[in-house]
Amino acid sequence: MELNYALEQLSLLQKKMYAYNSASSALYLDSVTVAPKDTAEGRGVALGILAGESQKLMTSPEVGELLSFLSEHKSELSHVEQRQVEELQRSYERMSRIPADEYMEYAILTNEASDVWHKAKETSDFALFAPVLEKLVNFNIKFAGYYDSTKAPYDALLDEYERGADMAFLDEFFGTVRERLVPLIKAIGEKPQIDDSFLHRHYPVEAQRKFSDYLMEILQLDRGHCGIGETEHPFTLEFNNKDVRITTNYKEDSLADSMYSVIHEGGHAKYELGIRDDLQYTCLTGGVSMGVHESQSRFYENIIGRSRPFIEAIFPKMQEFFPEQLKDVTAEQMYRAVNKVEPSLIRTEADEMTYSLHVMIRYEIEKQLIDKTLAVKDIPQVWNRLYKEYLGVDVPDDRRGCLQDSHWSGGSFGYFPSYALGSAYGAQMLQNMEKEMDVWTAVGKGDLTGVSAWLGDKVHQYGSLMTPAEIVKNACGQFDPTVYTDYLTKKYTELYHL
Amino acid sequence: MELNYALEQLSLLQKKMYAYNSASSALYLDSVTVAPKDTAEGRGVALGILAGESQKLMTSPEVGELLSFLSEHKSELSHVEQRQVEELQRSYERMSRIPADEYMEYAILTNEASDVWHKAKETSDFALFAPVLEKLVNFNIKFAGYYDSTKAPYDALLDEYERGADMAFLDEFFGTVRERLVPLIKAIGEKPQIDDSFLHRHYPVEAQRKFSDYLMEILQLDRGHCGIGETEHPFTLEFNNKDVRITTNYKEDSLADSMYSVIHEGGHAKYELGIRDDLQYTCLTGGVSMGVHESQSRFYENIIGRSRPFIEAIFPKMQEFFPEQLKDVTAEQMYRAVNKVEPSLIRTEADEMTYSLHVMIRYEIEKQLIDKTLAVKDIPQVWNRLYKEYLGVDVPDDRRGCLQDSHWSGGSFGYFPSYALGSAYGAQMLQNMEKEMDVWTAVGKGDLTGVSAWLGDKVHQYGSLMTPAEIVKNACGQFDPTVYTDYLTKKYTELYHL
Repeated sequence: MELNYALEQLSLLQKKMYAYNSASSALYLDSVTVAPKDTAEGRGVALGILAGESQKLMTSPEVGELLSFLSEHKSELSHVEQRQVEELQRSYERMSRIPADEYMEYAILTNEASDVWHKAKETSDFALFAPVLEKLVNFNIKFAGYYDSTKAPYDALLDEYERGADMAFLDEFFGTVRERLVPLIKAIGEKPQIDDSFLHRHYPVEAQRKFSDYLMEILQLDRGHCGIGETEHPFTLEFNNKDVRITTNYKEDSLADSMYSVIHEGGHAKYELGIRDDLQYTCLTGGVSMGVHESQSRFYENIIGRSRPFIEAIFPKMQEFFPEQLKDVTAEQMYRAVNKVEPSLIRTEADEMTYSLHVMIRYEIEKQLIDKTLAVKDIPQVWNRLYKEYLGVDVPDDRRGCLQDSHWSGGSFGYFPSYALGSAYGAQMLQNMEKEMDVWTAVGKGDLTGVSAWLGDKVHQYGSLMTPAEIVKNACGQFDPTVYTDYLTKKYTELYHL
Repeated sequence: MELNYALEQLSLLQKKMYAYNSASSALYLDSVTVAPKDTAEGRGVALGILAGESQKLMTSPEVGELLSFLSEHKSELSHVEQRQVEELQRSYERMSRIPADEYMEYAILTNEASDVWHKAKETSDFALFAPVLEKLVNFNIKFAGYYDSTKAPYDALLDEYERGADMAFLDEFFGTVRERLVPLIKAIGEKPQIDDSFLHRHYPVEAQRKFSDYLMEILQLDRGHCGIGETEHPFTLEFNNKDVRITTNYKEDSLADSMYSVIHEGGHAKYELGIRDDLQYTCLTGGVSMGVHESQSRFYENIIGRSRPFIEAIFPKMQEFFPEQLKDVTAEQMYRAVNKVEPSLIRTEADEMTYSLHVMIRYEIEKQLIDKTLAVKDIPQVWNRLYKEYLGVDVPDDRRGCLQDSHWSGGSFGYFPSYALGSAYGAQMLQNMEKEMDVWTAVGKGDLTGVSAWLGDKVHQYGSLMTPAEIVKNACGQFDPTVYTDYLTKKYTELYHL
């Protein structure tokens, strides 16, 4: 094989994967936005074929040979090409180790599980979901062995979502979170509570849409490259660094819901839009890991979006969009309201302070499920006990308890911790950012140029060129979870006069 | 090869083509509805790759062998399988003749051309579009040779959209149209004109959307399988017979524009939704030709939608949707207004009578473009001359002249004539329908069940199982353009007291 020919094939292979991903993304986007309701069947046929073609491509012997050849000529490749070969070889080996029949069986199982979970959640019937969940757990234990048989199964699964993270690392992280935040939340609970009732006045969707446009502007999201749509669950979907979509969900009795969805998804979008052009249409584009991605979305959502300077900057504009609803409200009241701490049942609606405890509960349960020290049937009992212990709330039913999230039904075990890691990374990014520049004067004027440039420089541009650990090192320095707990302690001590 | 195995492969091949088509459709749908404006580049890369893969699949030696094998075992196949093999073999031979790199290049070009055309139209700058158009013309001349080198290039292109139609056939058809309709239009011009000013009162988009919902209901389009969206240019897009999308465009100063777009696209949708289940995910689904497709859309739009009984049936409901705007209007005035003949500049807004002359102008220009007797740069001049000659109107700029339609930017040459053929087919279908049933009593009650069943039976169900000529024969009998010109003469003689 000629090296130049091999490099052309390498580029074409990645463009094909990009095309399959774009196709599936477009079909998915359609399905959750405008598709008529009884059209799932035909879309399923198309998505199944596309997934099969993409899997066949990535496990073909020709691709194996191509990657071997390029690995042998590593020294002749550019750094970017080397990294492409490394990442593709890693995927190739992993995918090749999963027997085709098991992969197919698993695909059918997750498809079925999604249906069963929906029904179980609707009727709050965990027993209905348990048998499928058990199968999913067993598949994941088996797959963990294919991913990396030298590791404990849960470590191998964690590595899929946040390469380098393992139980030793997460036990220490969540240990700090538990030790520092649980007492803090208790102390807050004993203080007079913040009044956020004005956030639940009537906020018409039309006015909220205009407010979203304004937020997109403040976030400096170029509408020529970043669309905003409406779906039941907000998400970010990237086609490439010139085409990213975010969605939000408007609730007329809540101002903060969509506001923080837009800022959160906007943070994800800024990451994708900030990736270097030369990484486009390759396996190195896209945010490097779930944890790093969440660090960006939660940075914008919480560290910036729920800061006093930011609220002070945008509040006059908020009053213009909602003159009646906010006429008797001050910026300070708004700042306090969007930071109200309220232990609750639902992770996706949790405040900045309690959020990581929701995640910790799932981490503890997953860890035991995968190492088989917890039986599937006992999940509800452990779930409810931990919610009482960490958050002080009573879980009234499994619908609002262990059936609330879709992740397990989709076969994702090891995904949750990344949600909390992101917040911790973000706090360290802020610390470093503050050392290098005056963050808050500009934010206080509604100018996020500096923040955007810093994150673009340290994180966004690299896409997946560096590993998650390298990106974290680059933007955070040595990982230290107390920076995160200190950040929260300081902010909420002031807010609640602790 | 085992016959059963070969049949499985035949089915899989067609499912793959379906998946590629679905993928491209979803990307296209996104691009014209919600995609941010500066995102064409990445979408072009994905569409190019998908087109390439689809082309590679359909020209692979394995497929060639499969189709040969099945052709040899034709007698052992069902009728449907035989037709699949015939059609696939036809495509296989045609596509095998187009070099893969040219095909890919062309896919990228059409994506780019769409952008350029938009800009050129916006600024009425034909010179901006001309170089791309020239490339598109040259590609089409070259492709025509690949399709069928024994034919004149334009005949080969015509055959792609309406198999069996050629310049000899169309010259005769348009000859009748020219001879019979041009004098009729002149005669109408000398009569007192119909007052349709009330169609241009203020019709708020929100009320028009509700009116569209009503029209979808009257057309008996199941919203669980047929969505309606909004785009600059209305169109119908089918994924399969359970998933069809139509779009419309609301103008607040015009009631009839969107109304007839919905009915027109609804006619296309009814065709696609009426195709038999056993043809789904095969090459035999989808309307059989552009001409037959237009016969359905224009049947609903004009023959039904602009008939006196239909207007009488829906007019009370129209008054409910637009009480202020229509309070001083009668059903008869509405009937006359939606049938006002007014030679104009814009094809898509043309009335039933002048429409085919707009098409004829494009036919004459395309014919000369493809046989190279007309240079691209001279299009505006010829265009403007023909509009004066046939319709008596002066074209003020290219935006409202030769840049008005998107077809050429999409690489479609030979498509236009089908628009006029469809109307002629429709008139013959009506003639036959009237022989077999009482069409107008039910239509006069707003009940289209009978019409729908007749068209479903004679046309829709077959998809592409029969050829266009067979479908036309089945529904129209022997083609005779004077049935169409007689239909128009009778209707407009009464309307204009000629």
